[in-house]
Amino acid sequence: MSARAQDPAHDLVGFSINQMTVKQLSMPDLVKGCLELGVPGVGLWREPVQQHGLHATARLVREAGLAVTSLCRGGFFTGATAAERARALDDNRAAIDEAAVLGTDTLVLVSGGLPAGSRDLPGAREQVAEALAELWPYAAQRGVRLAVEPLHPMYAADRCVVSTLAQALDLAEPFPAEWVGAVVDTYHLWWDDQIAAQIARAGAAGRIHCFQYADWITPLPAGVLTGRGQLGDGSVDFRWFRDRVRATGFAGPVEVEIFNDEMWSRDGHEMLAQTVARYREHAL
Amino acid sequence: MSARAQDPAHDLVGFSINQMTVKQLSMPDLVKGCLELGVPGVGLWREPVQQHGLHATARLVREAGLAVTSLCRGGFFTGATAAERARALDDNRAAIDEAAVLGTDTLVLVSGGLPAGSRDLPGAREQVAEALAELWPYAAQRGVRLAVEPLHPMYAADRCVVSTLAQALDLAEPFPAEWVGAVVDTYHLWWDDQIAAQIARAGAAGRIHCFQYADWITPLPAGVLTGRGQLGDGSVDFRWFRDRVRATGFAGPVEVEIFNDEMWSRDGHEMLAQTVARYREHAL
Repeated sequence: MSARAQDPAHDLVGFSINQMTVKQLSMPDLVKGCLELGVPGVGLWREPVQQHGLHATARLVREAGLAVTSLCRGGFFTGATAAERARALDDNRAAIDEAAVLGTDTLVLVSGGLPAGSRDLPGAREQVAEALAELWPYAAQRGVRLAVEPLHPMYAADRCVVSTLAQALDLAEPFPAEWVGAVVDTYHLWWDDQIAAQIARAGAAGRIHCFQYADWITPLPAGVLTGRGQLGDGSVDFRWFRDRVRATGFAGPVEVEIFNDEMWSRDGHEMLAQTVARYREHAL
Repeated sequence: MSARAQDPAHDLVGFSINQMTVKQLSMPDLVKGCLELGVPGVGLWREPVQQHGLHATARLVREAGLAVTSLCRGGFFTGATAAERARALDDNRAAIDEAAVLGTDTLVLVSGGLPAGSRDLPGAREQVAEALAELWPYAAQRGVRLAVEPLHPMYAADRCVVSTLAQALDLAEPFPAEWVGAVVDTYHLWWDDQIAAQIARAGAAGRIHCFQYADWITPLPAGVLTGRGQLGDGSVDFRWFRDRVRATGFAGPVEVEIFNDEMWSRDGHEMLAQTVARYREHAL
């Protein structure tokens, strides 16, 4: 029998690698790399899970003893027509089912941007609220929490109309905290002068359902999607975030999720090892 | 005697073209273009003003009857050392003097980003507060208002640690509203779900010292500096902003300030005419 992760590196308890950070690794290589380094958890994405097979992935991580700390991602609720929005809900029900099969308790939701041709931000945000109202009972029945992710305001038009932690919490508030919460991702939120108060609010309400690290580096690349920084390379004070999140009583894992073209162009096992080293250097 | 702008196009009263929108135009061509189109005001930048000569520019716009609605820009207050920050203050005193010579009552301030190697956002913001405290009496003596510009959060690290209108107003609040206020620029603020309330707050306090339009378009170019949209090409609802700003009693001009590589590559007079046409179509 292969190595298992029931004895992870002691200082990596609560650490998780989001697979997008090392997306060049196949699912088996990702699991192997985690076991070698003593990484106890992974955050998964739907597309590579589909590629390896949903049940095969579930078996692979379960047999390795890895925790699946989240599944990315549901969402993209906004749409110009009722039919578009209904299709999005169907797709989110499928994502919830997949999360349950994978044994993770958390589905990350990226809300979607403005519908094509629309300038109605409040209207788009209302569509997100309606989708959450529709989905949370389905998720709760399957033991899956919905984690609304505020993305950096530079994505408000084309990707996510939820731009601050305060907004994500406002959206989550009508629903049970056990089932609807927010993602705290340093990359998206580090600039916000209200972030300390909003982390405290999120923690007090029991709504921090996912906690993610990436650094902020400049210059941003064209399209601004794939220029997130390795921990320590940028402007984020990770220990500051860690302390504030922990001060709320949060005892969950932290995922490192970095989208970075240069890191993706290099050896995946090296990048995984580098990420663990940077986590130890900048966030422990 | 050449044409003068004392009889601008009736519907362009309160319209101003920020010269960066058509930076390919020389100062005389900018003035000529404004007179031909009935544009009554210009927002100027220090570098092209220096290039044409400060006093020559002042004479040119005065003789043309154009209002100088703002000078861009002072700021860049943040620095790793006291010496750096003192040099920034000297440079801002020079900018205030230039604004007075040009006959504008408003100097736009872009605060500056994190000092090199720093991750201390609150500390950088404190440096901005200290700079305002130092500068406003100097500005007031010369009849120049300081307009703190919140820039989009994507610039927080390398350009401007003031990211929301709320923050700009918090910074301005200790000082007389007559002399220290904020810039409301649609490009930087359109995504903020608190913007209606903060515009109302700014207007009630008499602190809207500059009002600027640019549209938000995607995808963003590398470096994210020169991808602002022509009015109507993107996600901003200009009339929504206009109505909320005017509802506060604001009676000042609106400047169109667009940084756009493609527009800069084309004929400046055409782009000026296009901007006026788009203003009429989307913002009147």
